[in-house]
Amino acid sequence: MNFDRILPYARQLLERVVDKGDVVVDATVGNGHDTLYLAQLVGEHGRVYGFDIQQEAIDETASKLEEHHLRNRVMLFQEGHELADQAIPPVHHGAISGAIFNLGYLPGGDETLVTRPRTTITAVEKLLDMIKPGGMIVMVIYHGHPEGAVERDYLLRFVQTIDGETAHVLRYQFMNTQTPSPFIIAIEKRSLRN
Amino acid sequence: MNFDRILPYARQLLERVVDKGDVVVDATVGNGHDTLYLAQLVGEHGRVYGFDIQQEAIDETASKLEEHHLRNRVMLFQEGHELADQAIPPVHHGAISGAIFNLGYLPGGDETLVTRPRTTITAVEKLLDMIKPGGMIVMVIYHGHPEGAVERDYLLRFVQTIDGETAHVLRYQFMNTQTPSPFIIAIEKRSLRN
Repeated sequence: MNFDRILPYARQLLERVVDKGDVVVDATVGNGHDTLYLAQLVGEHGRVYGFDIQQEAIDETASKLEEHHLRNRVMLFQEGHELADQAIPPVHHGAISGAIFNLGYLPGGDETLVTRPRTTITAVEKLLDMIKPGGMIVMVIYHGHPEGAVERDYLLRFVQTIDGETAHVLRYQFMNTQTPSPFIIAIEKRSLRN
Repeated sequence: MNFDRILPYARQLLERVVDKGDVVVDATVGNGHDTLYLAQLVGEHGRVYGFDIQQEAIDETASKLEEHHLRNRVMLFQEGHELADQAIPPVHHGAISGAIFNLGYLPGGDETLVTRPRTTITAVEKLLDMIKPGGMIVMVIYHGHPEGAVERDYLLRFVQTIDGETAHVLRYQFMNTQTPSPFIIAIEKRSLRN
């Protein structure tokens, strides 16, 4: 396929704005794949803040990071991402260059534990305040489960209300998949110049 | 902005599949910008087929191509794109690598002369038959005018019905523009391998 697939495109977008030494956020740690990826991306002087409400996700991610000797680049919080502004030290508010959300449930985990529109939108609003101009929030939206479809619709309505002077919002989605496949909504905070 | 803007992204997608010497289609010649671009893209051994129902568009495009000494790479038809299968010689059926549609009205022209969903969808179906595996149809959809919004909705419904075994369909759209800004739907015909 000549189109970029969803997960590689999500990472490609982040890589346009995240440099070595940056501060980034994994708002939904889950199985830790993206946390590990972000830890590698920001390098030895970078910092990753990771959030997940499930002990299982935090533990698995911590082990994965330890295996790769990258545990010290990552601060993990077993808390909802809607508390990001309290968990992330003030010195890093305004310094974050990238954040990623995987919205849905933990693959292989408890399918009744899903992200919820109210807390997701609160987290996105807070992170949009906390990222630096030119920074990006990338959301990968899994909407195959019933709550996922509801969350998707809330999010689509919400992002349309983001002031165009504040941020650009991009949707990247395959249209003719047999089952609802994940898609991307990405938000880039505008700098004064663009 | 770190996101690719709509028109550059439309061209970037086409450039992934169109090589020198290829056969391509400008389904909506309009002011000839894309026709000229395609003529340059396919090089001296390539061929562009261009369609527009308006004499004004055909004349302006012919002049523009002549100015650039590229008139001989392009065959212009003052006909609707839904007749593409009759206008394009059979030898090139199955050989087309790229096609572009700009859906809406001719900028600066008669705003009552707009593309229509029925003929647009017929043209897309025929071109999807006529492009080669791995080839791409890129549609830039202007939906700020009332008929444009109707056409957009027909097209969105139509592309969702394209069999996933036949083609991939991608949507690329900015979500929070103050006025409806153009967006992309791109269709890549699958080859046996992907």
